[in-house]
Amino acid sequence: MGSDSDLTIMKDAVEILEIFGVNTEVKILSAHRTVDRMINYAYNAKKRGVHVIIAGAGGSAHLPGMVAAVTSLPVIGVPIRTARLCGLDSLLSIVQMPPGVPVATVAINGAKNAGILACQILGLKYPKIATQIKKYKEELKKNVTARSQKLEVYGYDKYLRNKDHKKILN
Amino acid sequence: MGSDSDLTIMKDAVEILEIFGVNTEVKILSAHRTVDRMINYAYNAKKRGVHVIIAGAGGSAHLPGMVAAVTSLPVIGVPIRTARLCGLDSLLSIVQMPPGVPVATVAINGAKNAGILACQILGLKYPKIATQIKKYKEELKKNVTARSQKLEVYGYDKYLRNKDHKKILN
Amino acid sequence: MGSDSDLTIMKDAVEILEIFGVNTEVKILSAHRTVDRMINYAYNAKKRGVHVIIAGAGGSAHLPGMVAAVTSLPVIGVPIRTARLCGLDSLLSIVQMPPGVPVATVAINGAKNAGILACQILGLKYPKIATQIKKYKEELKKNVTARSQKLEVYGYDKYLRNKDHKKILN
Amino acid sequence: MGSDSDLTIMKDAVEILEIFGVNTEVKILSAHRTVDRMINYAYNAKKRGVHVIIAGAGGSAHLPGMVAAVTSLPVIGVPIRTARLCGLDSLLSIVQMPPGVPVATVAINGAKNAGILACQILGLKYPKIATQIKKYKEELKKNVTARSQKLEVYGYDKYLRNKDHKKILN
Amino acid sequence: MGSDSDLTIMKDAVEILEIFGVNTEVKILSAHRTVDRMINYAYNAKKRGVHVIIAGAGGSAHLPGMVAAVTSLPVIGVPIRTARLCGLDSLLSIVQMPPGVPVATVAINGAKNAGILACQILGLKYPKIATQIKKYKEELKKNVTARSQKLEVYGYDKYLRNKDHKKILN
Amino acid sequence: MGSDSDLTIMKDAVEILEIFGVNTEVKILSAHRTVDRMINYAYNAKKRGVHVIIAGAGGSAHLPGMVAAVTSLPVIGVPIRTARLCGLDSLLSIVQMPPGVPVATVAINGAKNAGILACQILGLKYPKIATQIKKYKEELKKNVTARSQKLEVYGYDKYLRNKDHKKILN
Amino acid sequence: MGSDSDLTIMKDAVEILEIFGVNTEVKILSAHRTVDRMINYAYNAKKRGVHVIIAGAGGSAHLPGMVAAVTSLPVIGVPIRTARLCGLDSLLSIVQMPPGVPVATVAINGAKNAGILACQILGLKYPKIATQIKKYKEELKKNVTARSQKLEVYGYDKYLRNKDHKKILN
Amino acid sequence: MGSDSDLTIMKDAVEILEIFGVNTEVKILSAHRTVDRMINYAYNAKKRGVHVIIAGAGGSAHLPGMVAAVTSLPVIGVPIRTARLCGLDSLLSIVQMPPGVPVATVAINGAKNAGILACQILGLKYPKIATQIKKYKEELKKNVTARSQKLEVYGYDKYLRNKDHKKILN
Repeated sequence: MGSDSDLTIMKDAVEILEIFGVNTEVKILSAHRTVDRMINYAYNAKKRGVHVIIAGAGGSAHLPGMVAAVTSLPVIGVPIRTARLCGLDSLLSIVQMPPGVPVATVAINGAKNAGILACQILGLKYPKIATQIKKYKEELKKNVTARSQKLEVYGYDKYLRNKDHKKILN
Repeated sequence: MGSDSDLTIMKDAVEILEIFGVNTEVKILSAHRTVDRMINYAYNAKKRGVHVIIAGAGGSAHLPGMVAAVTSLPVIGVPIRTARLCGLDSLLSIVQMPPGVPVATVAINGAKNAGILACQILGLKYPKIATQIKKYKEELKKNVTARSQKLEVYGYDKYLRNKDHKKILN
Repeated sequence: MGSDSDLTIMKDAVEILEIFGVNTEVKILSAHRTVDRMINYAYNAKKRGVHVIIAGAGGSAHLPGMVAAVTSLPVIGVPIRTARLCGLDSLLSIVQMPPGVPVATVAINGAKNAGILACQILGLKYPKIATQIKKYKEELKKNVTARSQKLEVYGYDKYLRNKDHKKILN
Repeated sequence: MGSDSDLTIMKDAVEILEIFGVNTEVKILSAHRTVDRMINYAYNAKKRGVHVIIAGAGGSAHLPGMVAAVTSLPVIGVPIRTARLCGLDSLLSIVQMPPGVPVATVAINGAKNAGILACQILGLKYPKIATQIKKYKEELKKNVTARSQKLEVYGYDKYLRNKDHKKILN
Repeated sequence: MGSDSDLTIMKDAVEILEIFGVNTEVKILSAHRTVDRMINYAYNAKKRGVHVIIAGAGGSAHLPGMVAAVTSLPVIGVPIRTARLCGLDSLLSIVQMPPGVPVATVAINGAKNAGILACQILGLKYPKIATQIKKYKEELKKNVTARSQKLEVYGYDKYLRNKDHKKILN
Repeated sequence: MGSDSDLTIMKDAVEILEIFGVNTEVKILSAHRTVDRMINYAYNAKKRGVHVIIAGAGGSAHLPGMVAAVTSLPVIGVPIRTARLCGLDSLLSIVQMPPGVPVATVAINGAKNAGILACQILGLKYPKIATQIKKYKEELKKNVTARSQKLEVYGYDKYLRNKDHKKILN
Repeated sequence: MGSDSDLTIMKDAVEILEIFGVNTEVKILSAHRTVDRMINYAYNAKKRGVHVIIAGAGGSAHLPGMVAAVTSLPVIGVPIRTARLCGLDSLLSIVQMPPGVPVATVAINGAKNAGILACQILGLKYPKIATQIKKYKEELKKNVTARSQKLEVYGYDKYLRNKDHKKILN
Repeated sequence: MGSDSDLTIMKDAVEILEIFGVNTEVKILSAHRTVDRMINYAYNAKKRGVHVIIAGAGGSAHLPGMVAAVTSLPVIGVPIRTARLCGLDSLLSIVQMPPGVPVATVAINGAKNAGILACQILGLKYPKIATQIKKYKEELKKNVTARSQKLEVYGYDKYLRNKDHKKILN
């Protein structure tokens, strides 16, 4: 990530990767303040055994695109929401890459999805991770279904008033 | 893709994949008009040996997200530019996916990059493709450098007037 | 709705429908996490006697459009406001549907209007509901007129300071 | 519609309604230039046996909302694309209606979908129309499937070069 | 104004008009909920001696445009900021009027300026008001100049810390 | 206006003013290139007998606001559409004026409405102009009604094919 | 700056300039409320020995452009974020200047960068300032690197929980 | 510039610099395709005697920001208009730089202004260039004034019809 202020968002990616048993390293590499370190990291990532890079940045968010320019590994970009333009600047800076240098962009603040997408990519090579993603999706489905059933039993009014249900709201 | 009117854009992805020697299949599967076929395709893709799915759609562009909802394969989304809102609608519909169901979104009309991103993903498993991407990036670099040198030799005025150079403009 | 976090908004639709004496069922059906349940629900809705479907979703809001793709019943879409892009993403994802698959879109967070629109649609078949809508609109008119008269009597300053009036502010 | 310049778009709604055998009347009623006629039309529509009103307008598009303010019939709004702001002004003016007065908004220039939505609404009362919509959706599905099969047989290159296929684009 | 929730903004216009000694009447007239009253008011305003109408509304803000459609008096429109789209919807709905029916639009939440603009218009007929506006602008100038001088004397740091200066901020 | 490239739009204002018999003067005064002339013009306008100023500008459109800063006459601003941002830049630069210095903003490229608004303002002092506006609005109404009747007689298909009708479009 | 409400942002520029030992003067000069003072200031700035002007303004932000129209010194514009449109209005009003009158625009609320940019410009003439900027950039680099190392040592979880690190978050 | 397709815009900067007698070099340096060359160029620019760098790029426009990250020279950024999002993506990518790394951003396609801004910056060190800018601005003023006088003599109608005047438009 480009700044430690992005960490409260980017940790969602790390948590997912840890759940799926994927080795991760977390670094602050600013495209604008630490150009050399950023380029060295991206340049050597493949040799060091890195498979996928997740890069999060906000505003004039050049980190994901610059990493993608240096490496031939797949790079996932997370636009971080900014106070000024609601993350529209981050999103457009990351997603509108020129031909030849793609960044796999996820939703604004979508670090969790960046983690999952990384796992889906890794799943091509490591069937165990692919299996885990399938299970994870099953869990999501069960969770939504369970909530729907509770809602139908309780009625929307009681469901909303009930603190425990509120807790499970996300 | 969701409609054959998207084909003039989406062919850029196929061309790249063919250059890199990747087997492809090209289908029109509308999220809204052929729900069953779309779901069946996405549901069975992995079993059939598909590794990555590239989905392009415009406007209220549900195809990439719905394919991602059904499969656990990585899905790359290409927002197709529309006449009405310049592709902003397509981009937001594709990229703003909820937690659990990422779509790897590329630029508006960025089908070429979708093809390259697919190759980068496949490169994790197939080192030959990874090597080709590296070469491809070298070619890009040489091409830009060659143009820059010509420009410096000719001057901007002659460069712009020269038809042959115009031809190589992209 | 796609998630129980949408319930605080979507309950406005249920309340209106209950006021008009319309039978309702409230379900959480995620277009992305519970594809099968969502499709089954939409596919069987008509046979089960459902007349109108109201679907609310936020961000990359595919639920209303996917329900509309499966059923031939009228589908009303409610774009839920998101923290990131103020609901512009939700609105464009829902309203910009392709030819053949319309979604009757209401305002961002406009669940109340979704309920009223559903009643207007039902009113074609059930004259009693049509009569109730007419009365409801009369009530709205009286309410606005009463406030305007109070404002003219009190003056804007006293009107704003008066807590009871503040309470009736909406 | 608010102006005869909208007719090239709004005719798509009439064509669909004629295909489905629905009686229609087409009028130019400007919310801003013919206030009385517009209000009289909307006020008397229900008594005259009108079931659904489709209103198309561009820019500061008040027609659909004002018609909805006067009638208790369901009103479908079609935002007409303008040269200035790509129809974003039309869309927001139509969809962002206040509580109590919904407009069922379709896509920018989405007159065809307005016609289909009207049929879906009428289908609640007239089962024959509901049956026709189902058939229409089947046709859409077959059409997409047929194109997909041709595409798979010909390959994308030949498909794009073939004039006859080009004709069936869009 | 269209709703008493707009009163906290629209009172800024009344205050300015009272300072300039202009007779005002403040009414809640919803374009959507009280169509008849709104039209009657606008239709009879000129006969009743009204010179300028200020209309404030939010979202799908039809009030100013509809009033302008009925009267030939100058109408000033105030787009009220909404929580959903930051007032962009209100602004576009009010300002993008079709040829023949202008609304003199001021800034989002710019009720104060609506009051001043009304006075500038009235100043053409009533030289006393024109003179007052000139004085008012002189006051604005002096006020800014005084603050600038204090700032230069205190330095920015002390200026910001000083509570009394803070009070005069904004 | 700020540049003679704005003249193709701004002439619509002059034409309306000539129709209503209002004396006009047309000048190119750039806020950025001819600051002194612009300020002198605005400063002396009232003394020279000018009643209303119409200012059109595009992009970073400072002309209307700067004229309004110097004069106490009512200033009408016309945002000129630019190729880059569809006139959104022009609109926001003109309409979002700070408290104390309003600009009566009309639609993007809305020079015709600027002319009509000027006449409505002048109508307060010159009843003859007010009467003409009323007649003008009656003409608009008749024109729309006549087109609607033709459309109903011919049917939309014939109406669209008929070249003479096409001519009266827009 | 145009108003003392901008001071909480614009002080960031002053602080940077003081750190680099650059003489500054801080003034409130409204383009709309104190036209003469603003023009006099800009007109005489060069003669008085001013080298660079930093102008911050919000909304319909004319100050930077008008200063640039009067002086031939480089002018740096800081778009101040507004509550209404997130600063998009300020940004477009400042950056979209017509040919001949550039404003060097920095990010929304980017006063700190305006200060640094001013120093970079001054660095051309005063090598000492250029040296300081180089050092400043080194500091930025070290700071980011130090945080990254701490993060790698602590892990993201402990890093986020640790109050001292939180303090250094920016 | 990042691509020779930007040359038709960026040549406007070169032309201005040549008029002012400033030595220039024109290069194609892609932030994404030729990372090393871009960094080397920016890193060595100051030592080689470069004073100001003008960087133009479109879409996910990283070139200006990355150059600014490497050099301590002032960097001027030109957002190039793209077909997809009208240059809004280019503008936000360039202007929204983080604290510490400013880019002096000019208007979309504003290469001419980039050239003028560069001259204004150089003017601090080279008084001859400052004098030329002053003259240039005088020329602009005369040109506008001359057109205004012609317009007043001819009338708008004849002015628009006159081909020679048309030629001098823009």
